[in-house]
Amino acid sequence: MSDQNVERVIIIGSGPAAHTAAIYNARAELKPLLFEGFMAGGVAAGGQLTTTTDVENYPGFPEGISGPELMSQIRAQSVKHGTRIKTETIERVDLSKRPFMVATATDEYFAEALIIATGATAKRLNLPGEELFWQRGISACAVCDGALPIFRERPLVVIGGGDTACEEASYLSKFGSTVTMLVRRDELRASKAMQQRVFNDPKIEIMWNTEAVEAVGDKTLGGLRVTNNKRGDEQVIDASGLFYAIGHTPNTAFLDGQLETDETGYVITRPDSTVTNVPGVFACGDVKDKVYRQAVTAAGSGCMAALEAEHFIVEHALEPAAAGERV
Amino acid sequence: MSDQNVERVIIIGSGPAAHTAAIYNARAELKPLLFEGFMAGGVAAGGQLTTTTDVENYPGFPEGISGPELMSQIRAQSVKHGTRIKTETIERVDLSKRPFMVATATDEYFAEALIIATGATAKRLNLPGEELFWQRGISACAVCDGALPIFRERPLVVIGGGDTACEEASYLSKFGSTVTMLVRRDELRASKAMQQRVFNDPKIEIMWNTEAVEAVGDKTLGGLRVTNNKRGDEQVIDASGLFYAIGHTPNTAFLDGQLETDETGYVITRPDSTVTNVPGVFACGDVKDKVYRQAVTAAGSGCMAALEAEHFIVEHALEPAAAGERV
Repeated sequence: MSDQNVERVIIIGSGPAAHTAAIYNARAELKPLLFEGFMAGGVAAGGQLTTTTDVENYPGFPEGISGPELMSQIRAQSVKHGTRIKTETIERVDLSKRPFMVATATDEYFAEALIIATGATAKRLNLPGEELFWQRGISACAVCDGALPIFRERPLVVIGGGDTACEEASYLSKFGSTVTMLVRRDELRASKAMQQRVFNDPKIEIMWNTEAVEAVGDKTLGGLRVTNNKRGDEQVIDASGLFYAIGHTPNTAFLDGQLETDETGYVITRPDSTVTNVPGVFACGDVKDKVYRQAVTAAGSGCMAALEAEHFIVEHALEPAAAGERV
Repeated sequence: MSDQNVERVIIIGSGPAAHTAAIYNARAELKPLLFEGFMAGGVAAGGQLTTTTDVENYPGFPEGISGPELMSQIRAQSVKHGTRIKTETIERVDLSKRPFMVATATDEYFAEALIIATGATAKRLNLPGEELFWQRGISACAVCDGALPIFRERPLVVIGGGDTACEEASYLSKFGSTVTMLVRRDELRASKAMQQRVFNDPKIEIMWNTEAVEAVGDKTLGGLRVTNNKRGDEQVIDASGLFYAIGHTPNTAFLDGQLETDETGYVITRPDSTVTNVPGVFACGDVKDKVYRQAVTAAGSGCMAALEAEHFIVEHALEPAAAGERV
C-alpha cells in the first residue's frame, strides 16, 4: 500500500495557486507531484475558475480569456515544466511527522514539504433552476463577473446581508439598472459604514425578510420567485443577474484539524507568507484568503508557497533514514 | 499650474503591480490616472520585466512570453478598461493631507487615494562590457533567467556574498556546469545554513577577495576579467552567465520620507495587505517586497491594492469642499 518513495514536494489543489506553485517548484527541479482531485470541493479540477465565463481582470490577456481556458493554459505550463499530476482526491493527511503523509482512497504518498491549495467553494442555495442558469446569469462573484456586458443596465439581485453582500451590491450598482438585495432577516449583518453605503445608493433596494425559492428564465436568467418569510406570499421579480454573497467554505475538512485554521476553517498563515503552524506545510490561494479571492492573488500566493517550500527543503533536508522510519 | 480636478485614484508605476491595480480600479469605474514615468528608476516604462528576456514562470503562458511582450499585454489591458496613462515621472508628493498631491516637473495632480507601485531597481556594477552583454548572459535575477537554455551546462558566475547570492548560486548549480561566486571579502554575509549549502555543493566554487573588472565575450558573454583585491593580480575566468546578487534599491526617494519604510527604503505595509502608515496610500509590488519579487507576486499585490483603495474611497468619501481647500 505505502509508496516508499519520498517526494520533495506534494501540492494539493488544481487552481491558479496550486499550478503556479507547481510551475515554480518544477522549474527549480523539485519534480512536484500534484493531486488535482476528482470533483474535489464539488467542482472540476481547475477550481472556481472553471465555473466562471470570461475573465477580464487576469493580467496578461487584454481581450479577456475564459476561466476554463486560462486554467487549461496554466495547467499545460505546469505539466510542460515537469509537474506530475494525479486526478485523485486526497482524503486524509498525517502532518504529525516528516515526511508528511497524504492519502487517497487507495494509496499513501510521502513528501518532505506540502503545499495546500485546495481553495474554497462558494456557497449556493441550490434553488430549482439554479443549475440551469449557473453562469447564464447566476454567479458567486460580483467582482469577477459584474462588469460583463450581460449585466449592463439590467436588473440585478444580490442574496446576502453581510459586508460582502453590501460590497457586491454597491459594486453592481455601477453596472445594473437596479440592484435588489434579498435579506432573509429584517436587518443587515454588515458594518454600519457598509449599511450606509447601500442605504445611500439610490439604485439599491432591499427586500427584507425575503428568500429566493426558484430561478426562472428562458435561455438566460430572467427572474426570481421570492417569498416573504413573514407574510408567506410569493412574487416573481425581474433579475438578469443573481449573485450569491452568502459566503464560501474553505476546503479544509480533509486536514482534520491538523493545521491551525480560523473559526470558519481558513488556514492561518504567518503574515505576508504562506507558512502554516506546521513547519514544512504551506498554504496558498483561497484556502487561506477570504478577503481578495482573485485568480491573480491566488497565483501570487502560489508562487510564494513554492519559493518558501523550496527554501524549507534546502534548509531542512531529511536524512535518508527518516523516510524509512515511516514506511 | 494646479489641476483643480481631484482624481479618485492615482497610480504611480508601470510594472505588473501598477497595471494590475489599474485594471481592477478601471473595471470598478474609478477611472485611474497612472503615471508610468519616463525612464523612472533608470528603466523604461514597464519596469524590470522590460529588462528580462523570456518569462517562463508567469502563469498563463505555457510557451513562455518575453518580458516586454508580457508587459505590453498587461498595459494594453489596462488601457482597454479605461486607465489614463501619463508618461511623466512623479518627482514629489504631499501626503500630509487629502486629497493627496503628486507632482511632475511641471504639474500638480490631486487624488483621493494613491497607489505606489514604483518597484525596485537591481543594483549593477556598471562594469566595462556590461551594457553590451546585458541579457546576453548578464542578468540580475537567477530565478527569472537561470533556467534558460543559454545557461545549461555552462560556467556561471554569481557576484555577491549574502543570502540572495548563496540562494542564487545553489539555484544555478542545477543548471550550470559550474557556479563561481565572486566574493569581495574573505567571508560570506549569508546565514550559516546558506553558507553550508554552498560549501556542500560540489558545483559551487568561491573566489574570495575577488572583484569583477570587465565583462568580455563575442556576441554573448564569454568571460569575466577579475582581480584579487589582496594580491592585485588579474585573470580572465570563463562565464557564460553572470548574475548580480548585490541587492536592489526600492524606488522610494521621491516620497521624501513621507511614508514609513524599513532601513533599506522599502515601504512598510500592514501584514497581508497593501495599507501603508498613511490612510489612503497603498503600496504594492517590489517597492514593498524584498522577498519574492516575481511578476506574478507583484501582480497579485497590485490587485490587493486596487481592492483596498476602492474600499477606502467608498468608506472615506471626501466632501466636495475638501478638494477646494487644496487648490
